[in-house]
Amino acid sequence: MAFVTEENLTDLAVERWGSAHDPRTARLLTALVRHLHAFAREVELTEDEWAAAIGWLTATGQACDDKRQEFILASDVLGLSTLVVQLNNRFSKDATPATVLGPFHIDGSPEAAFGHDMSEGIEGTPLYVTGRVTDTDGVPVAGALLDVWQADAEGAYESQLEVDEARLRAKYRTREDGTYCLRTIAPLGYTIPVDGPVGDLVGRTGISPYRPAHIHFLIDEPGYARLITHLFREGADFLATDVVFGTKDALVVSFTEHPAGRAPDGRVCDRPHLRAEYDFVLDRRG
Amino acid sequence: MAFVTEENLTDLAVERWGSAHDPRTARLLTALVRHLHAFAREVELTEDEWAAAIGWLTATGQACDDKRQEFILASDVLGLSTLVVQLNNRFSKDATPATVLGPFHIDGSPEAAFGHDMSEGIEGTPLYVTGRVTDTDGVPVAGALLDVWQADAEGAYESQLEVDEARLRAKYRTREDGTYCLRTIAPLGYTIPVDGPVGDLVGRTGISPYRPAHIHFLIDEPGYARLITHLFREGADFLATDVVFGTKDALVVSFTEHPAGRAPDGRVCDRPHLRAEYDFVLDRRG
Ligand SMILES: [Fe+2]
Ligand SMILES: [Fe+2]
Repeated sequence: MAFVTEENLTDLAVERWGSAHDPRTARLLTALVRHLHAFAREVELTEDEWAAAIGWLTATGQACDDKRQEFILASDVLGLSTLVVQLNNRFSKDATPATVLGPFHIDGSPEAAFGHDMSEGIEGTPLYVTGRVTDTDGVPVAGALLDVWQADAEGAYESQLEVDEARLRAKYRTREDGTYCLRTIAPLGYTIPVDGPVGDLVGRTGISPYRPAHIHFLIDEPGYARLITHLFREGADFLATDVVFGTKDALVVSFTEHPAGRAPDGRVCDRPHLRAEYDFVLDRRG
Repeated sequence: MAFVTEENLTDLAVERWGSAHDPRTARLLTALVRHLHAFAREVELTEDEWAAAIGWLTATGQACDDKRQEFILASDVLGLSTLVVQLNNRFSKDATPATVLGPFHIDGSPEAAFGHDMSEGIEGTPLYVTGRVTDTDGVPVAGALLDVWQADAEGAYESQLEVDEARLRAKYRTREDGTYCLRTIAPLGYTIPVDGPVGDLVGRTGISPYRPAHIHFLIDEPGYARLITHLFREGADFLATDVVFGTKDALVVSFTEHPAGRAPDGRVCDRPHLRAEYDFVLDRRG
């Protein structure tokens, strides 16, 4: 009987994990073993490096709690989260592209009227975002819900704070002609949490831990592929270096300056403000 | 400016992690990104599978404590631990091959005399292990310390128990002619811990969670490559399916039966017993 050697070890491990009862599990685990072994063989991983990796994985697991998911953060900065989103959301080229959900979405945001200010009482430059939701033929989607959330001027999302009411998040419904209008404050760039094992890794590189200014959107209408995406401010810092690889050409929009006066929702905005216009294009469900 | 696409994402991530300040870190992280992305692309990892993987990694990290290292166990069952040992211990073909250290070694075992019974007071079939420690030319290594440890008949190592004294572990020194002699009890096969995330994964497959009967050895002599290895009992259950891929041809030894009477250390063993003979061959330090 021939036992384990450097040469046969990977084949043995692949064969063994191929015994998973579920065929998809077998496919995943055998591929995982092959790629993991290929990595170790390619870099000739040392025993100290292996031990450091074990320590890092352990610390990353132990940094996770109700408010923090350090492994998702790891996946984000390695580009894996964006890759998985991309592999699973290959929309037609005319549709708005998808991005990562991120860790800060909260279910059940309150529905807000056309033009409602979801930033009420929070410091910042007023921003109106307007446009339409359509299908890829340009046909308006009436009554579509845009679930919107963003960070405040300190980069904090509601889920990171102790608050009683919905804060910088709301759901806006499109009108009969597919139009929507939301009011908020201009988002700012922010840094991912860098006080954990992921920050330690990023800190050993020239990687900027910042995300460019953005607002999150989720549109999940029957008959259409669910769209989870961001809008980014054109010209913002960190656009080309978004630490979670979110920036896509089609998601960068210009924020134009306007004096106090008539706002896009027909009411008066008594302060200078910004406006962004964006049409969300939904792919039909494959 | 062209931002992230499915096509350029991996190159962007590789370029970014290539900015690690230390060249070796850059090499490791860029290779990690390439293999991780190649895995996700090959299997077209779904968002649910990604979420399940995040959950499994988190649970694995949180299962770790002072007595348990679930990520090492994961590395063991995936064949990664044995692969890393192999990559870092490419001894000359005449030398005794290395295996994983495993999680149960305890530093500072007491030194025991030639023939000492390290299983005193513990149930089991007496076993004498004898032989020589030599270099690859067959020249005896005098005064070499063999650090030996094993599990009891329940598969428990001392580090898993609450005990006051060294239990089934000791250090034996070779004599002038390189010979050693230790007395213990015959080891039995045992299962790895299957009550955690690794056990959950193994349980989804046809993989046996058992290790074949074995004794651990560590010999770290100046001038020679450190040898961490196991001896396995010939004919033992699970030899061909060792869950941590430890079994190597050169490490399988026969345990022969002997009646009560003169033991290999010259004293009398008043019970029928087993004997194993093995010469450890140390590679010169590269
Ligand atoms: Fe965000
Ligand atoms: Fe063991």
